Amino acid sequence: MSAEEYEGYTGKALTFLKECNAKIWSKVDILVDGTKIRGMILPAPEGTPDLIFIKLDNGYNVAFRVDRIREIRVTGFEKVEYKIPTKEIKKLEEMPNVVIIGAGGTIASRIEYATGAVKPAFSPYELANAVPEIFEIANITTIQLFNIFSEDMRPEYWIKMAERASREINNGADGIVITHGTDTMQFSAAALAFMLANLSVPVVLTGAQRSSDRPASDSAMNIINSVIVASKSSIAEVSVCMHANLDDNVALVHRGVRVRKMHSSRRDAFRTIGDIPLALVRDGKINYLREDFDKRGVYKNADTYADAIFEEKTALIYVYPYMNPAIIETLIDAKYRGLVIAGTGLGHVPDVLIPTLKRAREEGLIIAMATQCIWGPVRLDVYERGRVLKKIGVVPADGMLPETAYVKLGWLLAHDYDEKSIIELFRKNLRHEIVLKEPINAFFNNI
Amino acid sequence: MSAEEYEGYTGKALTFLKECNAKIWSKVDILVDGTKIRGMILPAPEGTPDLIFIKLDNGYNVAFRVDRIREIRVTGFEKVEYKIPTKEIKKLEEMPNVVIIGAGGTIASRIEYATGAVKPAFSPYELANAVPEIFEIANITTIQLFNIFSEDMRPEYWIKMAERASREINNGADGIVITHGTDTMQFSAAALAFMLANLSVPVVLTGAQRSSDRPASDSAMNIINSVIVASKSSIAEVSVCMHANLDDNVALVHRGVRVRKMHSSRRDAFRTIGDIPLALVRDGKINYLREDFDKRGVYKNADTYADAIFEEKTALIYVYPYMNPAIIETLIDAKYRGLVIAGTGLGHVPDVLIPTLKRAREEGLIIAMATQCIWGPVRLDVYERGRVLKKIGVVPADGMLPETAYVKLGWLLAHDYDEKSIIELFRKNLRHEIVLKEPINAFFNNI
Repeated sequence: MSAEEYEGYTGKALTFLKECNAKIWSKVDILVDGTKIRGMILPAPEGTPDLIFIKLDNGYNVAFRVDRIREIRVTGFEKVEYKIPTKEIKKLEEMPNVVIIGAGGTIASRIEYATGAVKPAFSPYELANAVPEIFEIANITTIQLFNIFSEDMRPEYWIKMAERASREINNGADGIVITHGTDTMQFSAAALAFMLANLSVPVVLTGAQRSSDRPASDSAMNIINSVIVASKSSIAEVSVCMHANLDDNVALVHRGVRVRKMHSSRRDAFRTIGDIPLALVRDGKINYLREDFDKRGVYKNADTYADAIFEEKTALIYVYPYMNPAIIETLIDAKYRGLVIAGTGLGHVPDVLIPTLKRAREEGLIIAMATQCIWGPVRLDVYERGRVLKKIGVVPADGMLPETAYVKLGWLLAHDYDEKSIIELFRKNLRHEIVLKEPINAFFNNI
Repeated sequence: MSAEEYEGYTGKALTFLKECNAKIWSKVDILVDGTKIRGMILPAPEGTPDLIFIKLDNGYNVAFRVDRIREIRVTGFEKVEYKIPTKEIKKLEEMPNVVIIGAGGTIASRIEYATGAVKPAFSPYELANAVPEIFEIANITTIQLFNIFSEDMRPEYWIKMAERASREINNGADGIVITHGTDTMQFSAAALAFMLANLSVPVVLTGAQRSSDRPASDSAMNIINSVIVASKSSIAEVSVCMHANLDDNVALVHRGVRVRKMHSSRRDAFRTIGDIPLALVRDGKINYLREDFDKRGVYKNADTYADAIFEEKTALIYVYPYMNPAIIETLIDAKYRGLVIAGTGLGHVPDVLIPTLKRAREEGLIIAMATQCIWGPVRLDVYERGRVLKKIGVVPADGMLPETAYVKLGWLLAHDYDEKSIIELFRKNLRHEIVLKEPINAFFNNI
C-alpha cells in the first residue's frame, strides 16, 4: 500500500481506514450510528485526523467523525479523476479572497442517526472541504465564530458577526460568506445590513434546510453559490443566497432587509417580499435582476466599519383580535424604548390597545407600525383607526417588513440621537429596506 | 312631474332631488363633501328616505346620504332599461334564499371626501340594493348585526355571528353571506368554522379592500360572487370569497381555516396557505378546485347549531430573537389557559424562553406551537430545541396556520373537556384545518 492510497489521511482516520481495508476510491457501505450509507472514500484535506470523507452516490461530499463510524465495508473500487485542493493550490494571486465565517445552524449540523436529531457538528473548515469546488473559485479562509442554532441568536451575536466581517474586509477580503441557521437568518441579515457601514464587498448569508451529511442536503449548492456571489458579484450589500426552487442549479440572491423565511421545511423557503431579488445564480452564472444595488468599488475595504450597537429594550409584537394590553404594559413597565407592532391590514390595532399605546408614547416609547400581512404598505391616513394611531404618535413603518423594522429601530435607538432624528432615520431608506411602490409582480412571485 | 320620475324616493331624498330639478335617469355632477362625482340618479329601493342612489360612470352603484351632498347639478338625461328590485319580484319560490349578515368593514364604508378617511356608513340593505344583480340570483334578506371595523372584532362578536347564522339556517336559509372587514376576516372565518356544528349550507365571508362608494371598489364583485357561492355551491363550509387577482371577473373561494390576508392593500390579498382553494368563480360560474369539501345535503338545516363559546384567556405570540420572557410571564400571571406560539422554522423558540415555557406548563397552560413561516409543517422531532419543547409538553400545531390554531385552541378550551381531550382534539382534523402534506404547488401559488 502506498501513501497515495491514503492521500491526506492521518491519525485515527488513517488507522481506521487501514483496519477496514478501505482506501481512497474504495466503494463502501459505511455504518454511521446504526444507519448504512453508501458512497466512496475521498482523499482528505490537511489537518483532519478525525474525519473520513465520503462522496455519496448522489454526488454530495460529506465527512464523518471516526468515532461515529461503526464499520466500513468495502464493496468495490473505482479510481476517479479527483483532486483534493491543497494549501499549495489554494492561494492563487489571481483568485479573489473569500472568508467563510461559521455561525452555526443546520448547514453545520449532523444528523444523529441513533435518535434522528440534528446536532451542531461541522466547523466551517470541514464544511468548506466537503465542497472542494469552492477552492477553484476563490482563496478560501474559514473562521469558526460560534456554532449555535439560529433560534438562539441575540443582538450581541449580530454585533460579533458585524465586527468580524468588518475586520476581515479591512484585512482585504473580497467577499464574506456567513453560514448561519435559517430560522432567524432574516433578522441577522437585516442587522448586518444596518451595522456594516460603507460596505465595500458582498456579505452573503447562507444556510441549509437539511443537515450537511444528509443525502438531500441543500448545503453544498448554497455554499458554492454563496462563494460565487461573494467572490464575483458586484453587489456590495448584505444578502441571503439560497435555493430558488426545488432544482439544484438555481439560487436566488435576496436583499438581507427584504427577505423572509416563508416555509418551515422547503429548500426554497427564502423569498424576497414585495420586491424583486438582487440576482439569480443559474449553473454558476450570476444574472442580475435589478440595477439599483450598492456597487463594489464605491468604498474601499478600509472604509468599511462596524456601527454595531443595539438597544435590547426593543420589542416586536404581532397583534390579534381582542389582544390583552397587559402584554404591552409589561414592556412599558420594563422601561422599553422601542416597540414595533405588526398590525392588521394597513396598520391597525384592536380598540382595546389604544389607551396602552397612548401611555407608551407618554412614557417615551417610540412605536412603529408594520403590517402582519407581510406584503403591502402601512398607511395611517386611510382609516379612522390609523388616524387615531398617527395622532398618538405612532410612526408608520411604510413599506418595511416587520422583522426589518424591529432590527432597524433597535439599531437606531442604540445611537445617541434625539427622538426626532431616530424617527426621521427610521422613515428614511438607508439600506433599500423601504419599498414604497411594490412592483406589480412582486406579490407571491416565484421569480 | 309624475311619481315615476322619483320612483322609490321619499322623505329628505325626494325633497332634495326636487330642489335640484333632478329626477331618475338624470345625468348629474354631484358634490359630496367637497368632491365632485359624476353619474346618474338611480331609482331608490323602499325605506331609504335619506339616501340618493347613483350609478357611477364606471358602472358601480353607490348611495350617498342627503346630508353629505352639497349640490346636484343636472347635466343631461338618459332613460335606461333598469328595474330596481321590489319586494314583489324578490321572493320567488324557485330561487334560493340567501341571508346577508352585515358585520361592518370597508365593504360597508364610505369615504369622507372632506378628510379622505373611510368611515362605516352602509347597512347591508343599502349594500345589497347597490348591487341589484344579486336579486336575480337569490331571494335576499339583509340583517345588520353590527357595523365595526374588523380590527375591533372580539370573541363575543364571533359568537354573535355564529348564533345568528345558525338561527337563519334553521329558519331555512340556503346560504349565508357575511360582509366583514378584511383586517381580521381570517380569525372570524376560522371561529365560525369551528363554532358552526353540522353545517348544512355555505357560509361565505366577504369584504372589500376599497370602500363601496369608490370607483375602484372591489365590493360589488365580491358580493355578487359570494351570493353565487352561498346560493348555488354545494360547499357546506365556512369560506372566504374575494378577488382572485387584479381582474374583476375571477374570485377565489378559500377555506375559512386555511386563508390569510397576505397583502395590506391589493384586492387579491386573501390567499389559501399551503393548500388548494375550494373553488374559483369565473364570470359567475363556479369551478370546484377540489372534491373533499363538506357537502350540502349531508345535514338538514335543522341540524346546524352554534357551538359558540370561547376562552378569552388564550393568546397568540410570534417570537423573535432574544425575546423578553416577561411577555409570556405576564400571561401566566394573568391565569391564561392557552398559548399559541408562532415559532421560528419547524417550531422553535429562543433559549431564553425555555424556563418560562416550563413554568407555563407547570401552571397548567396548554402551549401549542405553530410556525411564523406561515407555510410548512411544525416538527418537534427534528432538532434538539424541538425535542426539548416536546418534553416540556408543547403541542405541535402540525400543519395549522398560527391564527387558526389560536382560534381553535380558545374554542376548545371553553368546552368542559379535560386537558388530554383538548390536546387530542387540537391535533385532530375537525374542519380540514390541518394540512399534513402540502401539495407541491401550494407554496406561493397564484392559481
